[in-house]
Amino acid sequence: MIIQFKAPIQMDIVTGLQQKLAALPAQVFVIKNHLAAMGVKSFDFTTAEAAAIDSVSFDDPSYTLGSRQFQPEDTIIGLPHSIIGGDHFTMMAGPCSVESEEHVKRMAKVAKEGGATILRGGAFKPRTSPYSFQGLGEDGLRFLREAADENDMDMITEVMDDTHVQMVADYTDIFQIGARNMQNFSLLKEVGKTDVAVGLKRGMSATIDDLLNAAEYIASEGNQNIFLIERGIRTFDNKYTRNTFDLGAIPVLRKLTHYPIIADPSHAVGEWDLVTPMANAAVAAGAQGEIVEIHDDPEHALSDGPQALKPKTYLEMCREVYAIRKVMDSFKEVSHVNS
Amino acid sequence: MIIQFKAPIQMDIVTGLQQKLAALPAQVFVIKNHLAAMGVKSFDFTTAEAAAIDSVSFDDPSYTLGSRQFQPEDTIIGLPHSIIGGDHFTMMAGPCSVESEEHVKRMAKVAKEGGATILRGGAFKPRTSPYSFQGLGEDGLRFLREAADENDMDMITEVMDDTHVQMVADYTDIFQIGARNMQNFSLLKEVGKTDVAVGLKRGMSATIDDLLNAAEYIASEGNQNIFLIERGIRTFDNKYTRNTFDLGAIPVLRKLTHYPIIADPSHAVGEWDLVTPMANAAVAAGAQGEIVEIHDDPEHALSDGPQALKPKTYLEMCREVYAIRKVMDSFKEVSHVNS
Amino acid sequence: MIIQFKAPIQMDIVTGLQQKLAALPAQVFVIKNHLAAMGVKSFDFTTAEAAAIDSVSFDDPSYTLGSRQFQPEDTIIGLPHSIIGGDHFTMMAGPCSVESEEHVKRMAKVAKEGGATILRGGAFKPRTSPYSFQGLGEDGLRFLREAADENDMDMITEVMDDTHVQMVADYTDIFQIGARNMQNFSLLKEVGKTDVAVGLKRGMSATIDDLLNAAEYIASEGNQNIFLIERGIRTFDNKYTRNTFDLGAIPVLRKLTHYPIIADPSHAVGEWDLVTPMANAAVAAGAQGEIVEIHDDPEHALSDGPQALKPKTYLEMCREVYAIRKVMDSFKEVSHVNS
Amino acid sequence: MIIQFKAPIQMDIVTGLQQKLAALPAQVFVIKNHLAAMGVKSFDFTTAEAAAIDSVSFDDPSYTLGSRQFQPEDTIIGLPHSIIGGDHFTMMAGPCSVESEEHVKRMAKVAKEGGATILRGGAFKPRTSPYSFQGLGEDGLRFLREAADENDMDMITEVMDDTHVQMVADYTDIFQIGARNMQNFSLLKEVGKTDVAVGLKRGMSATIDDLLNAAEYIASEGNQNIFLIERGIRTFDNKYTRNTFDLGAIPVLRKLTHYPIIADPSHAVGEWDLVTPMANAAVAAGAQGEIVEIHDDPEHALSDGPQALKPKTYLEMCREVYAIRKVMDSFKEVSHVNS
Repeated sequence: MIIQFKAPIQMDIVTGLQQKLAALPAQVFVIKNHLAAMGVKSFDFTTAEAAAIDSVSFDDPSYTLGSRQFQPEDTIIGLPHSIIGGDHFTMMAGPCSVESEEHVKRMAKVAKEGGATILRGGAFKPRTSPYSFQGLGEDGLRFLREAADENDMDMITEVMDDTHVQMVADYTDIFQIGARNMQNFSLLKEVGKTDVAVGLKRGMSATIDDLLNAAEYIASEGNQNIFLIERGIRTFDNKYTRNTFDLGAIPVLRKLTHYPIIADPSHAVGEWDLVTPMANAAVAAGAQGEIVEIHDDPEHALSDGPQALKPKTYLEMCREVYAIRKVMDSFKEVSHVNS
Repeated sequence: MIIQFKAPIQMDIVTGLQQKLAALPAQVFVIKNHLAAMGVKSFDFTTAEAAAIDSVSFDDPSYTLGSRQFQPEDTIIGLPHSIIGGDHFTMMAGPCSVESEEHVKRMAKVAKEGGATILRGGAFKPRTSPYSFQGLGEDGLRFLREAADENDMDMITEVMDDTHVQMVADYTDIFQIGARNMQNFSLLKEVGKTDVAVGLKRGMSATIDDLLNAAEYIASEGNQNIFLIERGIRTFDNKYTRNTFDLGAIPVLRKLTHYPIIADPSHAVGEWDLVTPMANAAVAAGAQGEIVEIHDDPEHALSDGPQALKPKTYLEMCREVYAIRKVMDSFKEVSHVNS
Repeated sequence: MIIQFKAPIQMDIVTGLQQKLAALPAQVFVIKNHLAAMGVKSFDFTTAEAAAIDSVSFDDPSYTLGSRQFQPEDTIIGLPHSIIGGDHFTMMAGPCSVESEEHVKRMAKVAKEGGATILRGGAFKPRTSPYSFQGLGEDGLRFLREAADENDMDMITEVMDDTHVQMVADYTDIFQIGARNMQNFSLLKEVGKTDVAVGLKRGMSATIDDLLNAAEYIASEGNQNIFLIERGIRTFDNKYTRNTFDLGAIPVLRKLTHYPIIADPSHAVGEWDLVTPMANAAVAAGAQGEIVEIHDDPEHALSDGPQALKPKTYLEMCREVYAIRKVMDSFKEVSHVNS
Repeated sequence: MIIQFKAPIQMDIVTGLQQKLAALPAQVFVIKNHLAAMGVKSFDFTTAEAAAIDSVSFDDPSYTLGSRQFQPEDTIIGLPHSIIGGDHFTMMAGPCSVESEEHVKRMAKVAKEGGATILRGGAFKPRTSPYSFQGLGEDGLRFLREAADENDMDMITEVMDDTHVQMVADYTDIFQIGARNMQNFSLLKEVGKTDVAVGLKRGMSATIDDLLNAAEYIASEGNQNIFLIERGIRTFDNKYTRNTFDLGAIPVLRKLTHYPIIADPSHAVGEWDLVTPMANAAVAAGAQGEIVEIHDDPEHALSDGPQALKPKTYLEMCREVYAIRKVMDSFKEVSHVNS
């Protein structure tokens, strides 16, 4: 059940309702003038309560807090150097792995030159094989933080382990939850207990509902600074692309949820020469930002070299993406009526 | 084996080689200054032959005629009112089914107003159930032809049956081969024997190689007026979209083949309000045209109403698509070097 | 709408109803004591009609004729040397392609020795590439017919082209419709107009409903001698198996439809050493027969060599399959109540 | 690189080699008479070393420790009341969730009656939505332990959180790693540091190689008491079954790895009336055991009720599975030559 209260909100009514609902028992969330009571499918209101209420709906989806029914307006995430969501467009770039202090600082300059305000880089790497490079660990975090600070950028990095959450939080502006951990519910709850922004990647076989329910694990712990990342799904067709980039998910998600939707063309296709066309497609489809991998020597990258853009290619990609975004801005009024 | 001859071509050498290769036996095709001998993986050339040859390669893919190795330059299909391929961008629009003479003529005017030069409409409909509307048959073809002619447009319509090929050819400028018939090899061979242009739709579970091999069935019969249509593939995720629009296939196909690549956002997503974002994404990804479904009364359409754009929505989509295309044109120089 | 009439059937009532329903207009089928009127979702019966009717249901699926609602008892297909369906178990075996008169006759003896009563073999082959071996054509049909006759077997062979239906019918006991043609509706209608049995293979990305609707195209033309073949679907996992054998479809189909369900482990996995375990699994899952490929020299087979069983391996497979079938027979009473 | 030493092993040679390889640096594992050096693709042996070596191979897969190349003979896991692997067949059964002390004890008796020697039950539940029942936690572990002990059974239960590993180890004989956590590498490493047996479930979109690489994360930490569970993959076809049960993976895995392969028909199909046919199919395909869910009141189960077998249905399933297993035993000699 989602209740929208009339303005001005009568706090005694809200508090009374919260107590009654909690006693059912139901989990209850109050955010601004909305109250959500999970799993409640009918309720008898008193006359006084009814008078304070603007609207009630019982058909909220299981991802209540993330739904447009609960919060119609876009979530906007403010960071020291970036804004994510709403009408803002946010570029995130950097190497797949933090490889050395010197390298990540060089890549940060390139990222910034292209217009990125958020620096990406992995210090803990989720590799298919235990014998592959696993990342520099806390050293990597420190190098990434310094590289970001030197360029007045925010940073995003993956956290893979709930015991690392506090340590990673000491360095990062944004936690990235990787595709393989999208349904690592312990980890989701742990980052949900912080107030650090979270970029949640869609799992390789996650439906759109699965993704929104995973986000709900974070939100229901109190952290609503969430954005979602489409990065390709696993299908039968993987000879020429690593995954199938599900761009249709972008307008679908923008309709269902208020969280910002970011596109990751690098992982979606896995081949550098397909990244620019897919980055272009993503912004044209309505993505509110992109996260791309860059490297000045992809042949010797410690991970995911084939998909990394070299600096000049990255800068060209940025030019194209921004030019398309400018066109999209000029058509901003989306009509939800077929006429 | 693909041979590229030096200019000027020595025709006696070519003819001699053709005979030798045909005697192996191998299927041999000569187009312009290229010769393809299917399945030939080694060959001893005489000194005279070697002197006439510019280059030879033995690693051609199974879809030899459609490959960039065989023909590096784009295929351009010229029709009375349209050009498909190369740097041209072609809009195709119309109702899913031809429903009546009056209706298709009204829709043709709308299509034309949006900039479409090709009118689409089904007279023979491939429906999942035998009890669904199966199309108006030859009457539908006639109505569509008249509607196209009245608006100085070309027409495209599906042919489902090899016994209909000649009859449909009497009306249409372009055969459409539907996704369900992509590997109906009898039908492919039959349209391959005509010189009518063919729009070949990718099957729901067809890999990119499957699609190119299907096109090869048409080309190897002599008809190279082919374009390919990406229309979504079947994946695990189909709650909010009918199929998963594989936009990554667009730049991949443009790299592998010289045939024009057209996008069908309507069938890919199946919901009208996702068609414009996906049409935008397709042009940004490098599609050389789009084919979309329109209807002025989708609720009462005889097929696929939910995905049909009403006139105003269609015209708005066209504006957005052309604006993005204009941006893409300004970035036309594609670099194939990561730098 | 499905009507079940009381016994004895009052033919005047049935005929009257048929006429009224046909005038709606609706397609009407009467088989034994059942009447199906496609798409009819409500109807006012006269008192006399109501008195003649045992039960009426309006929730029939789109594949009405194939549904258990329309015909609760199993379809049994009788052929000169075989019975397919019900409690019978039918083995079909033979080479992928008919390669020569001598070879197919040798393979027929092997097939028979293993207990097969139906000889398989392709004379028209649906190959991904137009340059692959396309089959011996009508010669192949004749060789297969002779090989079957010499061993008192029935024969099954693929028909790919609606213009070939009559010619193939002159030779075969059973048409096979291949996976790539499962939704070639022209072909389905054409075989539906004959009274030759049809083995319909599930398409690579066909849902169970798609398969049943495809069968309905055949049945609605008058031919109910249909059996369905599960042969694997296309998924993300195809490194070690060609397709994913969807054995869960076997008990699902047996519940939904009265048509016999046959398993094709050869195409499902594509590797000979996986065929026996999968043939075993299929019979344990409730398949009413199997169709497998055999060859005495797979390395030189003209198609699909890697999946062909050599004679001794095939005979061992048969022993295992029959032993499991015997166990299954002893547990024949299936309960549809969880208790 | 995998080295197999001659018997008797010369330990000084082995130790010397270990040191040289570790200095490359490479991860080195010595188990019995095998040495694996990860990522080493060439090596110059001294004459003395060469003399001590029986064979060397450099084409080991990335899941070296789990491969048949490294360990040809089956892994056998011995537990107080059960043996898993080799020619043994192991039944595991119990409720999806531990719901109460009384209930799990009642279900344990039923499981035991059917021949199960391992009791399953979830105390920590990985639910798609955070608002669904999340399990009884440590109370659940205690109830499950007591129920297992009272019936002389071993127990298996899911661990979802690396911080819980020690606590869960205090109760359980086997850790279950769920499908959603198959690539939660932190968790895999943590259970790899214990000597508790691990049942690793295949992820919904995990390839066979992904599964074997995930197992390698456990093995490379020192714990080789691993068995793998096939539980269905996510495909386009999910109307009648929750997942697609990939039974072909069973013989493939048995060929590639020495770890025992167990089938989970309950989660694979998600509908009780399909569980018995799929359990039958799994044993016929070569599964070395099954894990199934039972409940005496599925309508009121706290999770996954629709797939739970009621006691009588479960006992009937066991009878069928054992009867097929008996047949399989009589055919035990698997030939790896097509003849």
